[in-house]
Amino acid sequence: MEIFTLPLTLILILCIITFTQSAPMFLGKYAKKPNKLSYKYETKHFTQRLDHFSFHDSGSFSQRFLINTNNWVGAKRKGPIFMYCGNEGDIEWFASNSGFLWDIAPRFGAMLLFPEHRYYGESMPYGSKEEAYKDKNTLSYLTAEQAIADYSVLLRELKRNFSAEGCPVVLFGGSYGGMLAAWMRLKYPHLTVGALASSAPILQFEDIVPPETFYNIVSNNFRRESTSCFNTIKESLDMLQSMGENADGLKQLAKTFHLCGELKTAQDLSDWLSSAYSYLAMVNYPYPSDFLMSLPGHPIREVCRRMDSAADGTSVLDRIFNGVSVYYNYSGGVDCFELDDDPHGMSGWQWQACTEMVMPMSSDPDQSMFPTFNFNHTYEQDRCMSLYGVKPRGSWITTEFGGHDFKTTWKNSGSNIIFANGLLDPWSGGSVLQNVSESLVALVTEEGAHHLDLRASTPNDPDWLVQQRTSEIRLIKGWIDDYNQETSSAFVM
Amino acid sequence: MEIFTLPLTLILILCIITFTQSAPMFLGKYAKKPNKLSYKYETKHFTQRLDHFSFHDSGSFSQRFLINTNNWVGAKRKGPIFMYCGNEGDIEWFASNSGFLWDIAPRFGAMLLFPEHRYYGESMPYGSKEEAYKDKNTLSYLTAEQAIADYSVLLRELKRNFSAEGCPVVLFGGSYGGMLAAWMRLKYPHLTVGALASSAPILQFEDIVPPETFYNIVSNNFRRESTSCFNTIKESLDMLQSMGENADGLKQLAKTFHLCGELKTAQDLSDWLSSAYSYLAMVNYPYPSDFLMSLPGHPIREVCRRMDSAADGTSVLDRIFNGVSVYYNYSGGVDCFELDDDPHGMSGWQWQACTEMVMPMSSDPDQSMFPTFNFNHTYEQDRCMSLYGVKPRGSWITTEFGGHDFKTTWKNSGSNIIFANGLLDPWSGGSVLQNVSESLVALVTEEGAHHLDLRASTPNDPDWLVQQRTSEIRLIKGWIDDYNQETSSAFVM
Repeated sequence: MEIFTLPLTLILILCIITFTQSAPMFLGKYAKKPNKLSYKYETKHFTQRLDHFSFHDSGSFSQRFLINTNNWVGAKRKGPIFMYCGNEGDIEWFASNSGFLWDIAPRFGAMLLFPEHRYYGESMPYGSKEEAYKDKNTLSYLTAEQAIADYSVLLRELKRNFSAEGCPVVLFGGSYGGMLAAWMRLKYPHLTVGALASSAPILQFEDIVPPETFYNIVSNNFRRESTSCFNTIKESLDMLQSMGENADGLKQLAKTFHLCGELKTAQDLSDWLSSAYSYLAMVNYPYPSDFLMSLPGHPIREVCRRMDSAADGTSVLDRIFNGVSVYYNYSGGVDCFELDDDPHGMSGWQWQACTEMVMPMSSDPDQSMFPTFNFNHTYEQDRCMSLYGVKPRGSWITTEFGGHDFKTTWKNSGSNIIFANGLLDPWSGGSVLQNVSESLVALVTEEGAHHLDLRASTPNDPDWLVQQRTSEIRLIKGWIDDYNQETSSAFVM
Repeated sequence: MEIFTLPLTLILILCIITFTQSAPMFLGKYAKKPNKLSYKYETKHFTQRLDHFSFHDSGSFSQRFLINTNNWVGAKRKGPIFMYCGNEGDIEWFASNSGFLWDIAPRFGAMLLFPEHRYYGESMPYGSKEEAYKDKNTLSYLTAEQAIADYSVLLRELKRNFSAEGCPVVLFGGSYGGMLAAWMRLKYPHLTVGALASSAPILQFEDIVPPETFYNIVSNNFRRESTSCFNTIKESLDMLQSMGENADGLKQLAKTFHLCGELKTAQDLSDWLSSAYSYLAMVNYPYPSDFLMSLPGHPIREVCRRMDSAADGTSVLDRIFNGVSVYYNYSGGVDCFELDDDPHGMSGWQWQACTEMVMPMSSDPDQSMFPTFNFNHTYEQDRCMSLYGVKPRGSWITTEFGGHDFKTTWKNSGSNIIFANGLLDPWSGGSVLQNVSESLVALVTEEGAHHLDLRASTPNDPDWLVQQRTSEIRLIKGWIDDYNQETSSAFVM
């Protein structure tokens, strides 16, 4: 189960944005803590203002953070502080799944710090999740800017407590956490020396990248394995639509796909399948990974093999069922499938997507295997108004953090960020894939998927992954060395 | 009256921070509009969110901005946009007193834009100043971050309306407006190509510069003209304290200083005199300037001449009265003086100083001519709690905008800012006086005072001022040329 927690942080976005009719399907299951915590840390709490940017009487909340100082060489030797920017979920979950930080802390003599994102895990304003998620007024302080300000305030306070004002801070983050790491480095460069932003789609806003990018990459993951596989999926999704038009068709579909209950609309099934395809693309890792359900290495290859190798005469939908079972039932223990597996209903990310995190996504059937879907601002607005009474601010993120013409605008005003991406990851399309300057560096791996680099090293790591991590370590070391040189430190690593 | 409006923007800070017992003395008078508006512009309004950083139901307000497109060469030719970051006052006042922008707009083919700072002038939330300033909850959105976000949102909307997304934006600002310009360039580099931050004490926070800096510079302005002048002032301020201890002494002081009414405490008189000294240092300009009351060129030289040249046997306090009359009554029309000339009472800056803009200032009598004064956080906290029910956040500005170790931290993560300062200006002590990098440049003039460079050129400008402005124009042109080159523009200025 542990292997696949991090990559999930963004599938939630996907589910919400693409399949607007359905509730997010994964967070409920995956948000639970891993059964076994692999690493040792202290759990602490810090009182944060709920609103950093006004003096409105909004009170405070208790932010949880995890800390490990076992390897830290101390303030006098300017021991670095490695801070992981918590994502939209329980921070223990991210700490346990960011093995890269734990792996490299000893050689850097670094302290590890994992602050939890407000409104997630145990860092709930108003005392409980129920109260915090009550309505738009209680949710109103769930924004990326406030979360980054939390991290900044915590960092300064922590450095003060450890007399560690002179210690360099390196930020880490994957997926949404990677976006926060990159943005924090851009907005608070005075508090950090650099950031490793892995699989961080900070360009997936407004019209910076084409809205079809995500689904085109998902589709290419299948096409590159087999054209017939790609075509089968495409054909099946069209079939679902026509079959969904009558009750018999729905019954037939429920039976073919071994659903536990009734199928209400074909769209529910379509969402369930499409989520699996997108998800598989994100974790199209080169070696077996073990998450909620186990997956083989190159899982899409296996999906397509099962679809393509079915006996002649096997129907399109049966082939699909064979294939998608790789994702939903690889270990074979499931008798029937529940389409809606989110026990908690509305999630924090759903709020974020309805307010700031407006990531337009469409599907163009000329290029992708998915049916036509056009992102529609009016539809989104209506949806968010009816859900929360808020209007999404589609231009805010690019106003606050930039993104348009980033090669020109960040070139001279940003430094020391690694944008790490694997091209199999559908989120790579909204990420920075080219060097912006000597120190705003894109590390792109052709065979990589969703921020595999942040996970603990394993004996199965392919050479390119080992090499990617080596480059990351070299760059991070360079930032720290530069900092130490500039501040005339005598400490040599 | 026009000449001296801009330099006043910071004396307010001074009054509040130093003489905490007294209300700000100057804003009331100077905040009124100039009698004659020298420049032509259109006045427009733009609806802004009251809170950019949360989704709290705080509503919106109408922001006023002034715009002049007469010289603009248009979007197709990438005509630059020069934006002045409005300070803590009526924007017409700043537009009229920032002649430098009007002088250089034609040669750059630039549009001029003057957005007003929220909670000042006509840009009042809640419909009126009375409502906006009612209590801490209505005032709570009066922060620098919100103001900078206003400017950013306005800029994007304006560019969209003019199809001017490709046009480079240069920021300008003096005093607090200069701080906003520098901070906006650091935090929103994606929206601008550079900033001229004149007399912007962005380091006057926490313990970045010694708290005695301001008063030491004021004092040096007097000492460099004459040691006896410096000593007379020092002696007089000590005398006031002992004379203030009995009613006869207060009566005597009221008579000596030609006050219109009773003198309640010697501190009131001390504040009135000390404000004049600080104010004189700020506008210790090399040529006559005409503001509320006219001042000669090198006004401190004239103050000291009058103190020193009084007949033998003239008392210390009479000498002081002679001298300070240069500031309060140079044109000779005043019969008696009112110590409290602020008709409006609480000002917006007073709120800002009680919340974010905590600029510690002290006076060390070993180095300055002022009596001992030690900035005291507990005292400030009590004062602000009793005034507004808020606690100042003394570490917030440096968390949000940096400042500590700025040479290291901004070196690689900021670009294209001119920090212009005159060393006679007491605010220069809290400003950036050394180059940080090739493009974070300090322009320091030994004989300059408070942001004279932003004013319209006059035939009286000394060579160093002409040269300073020439350097500024050259740097600004460089930013625009670089931008045009990087965006492959064909437009050559």
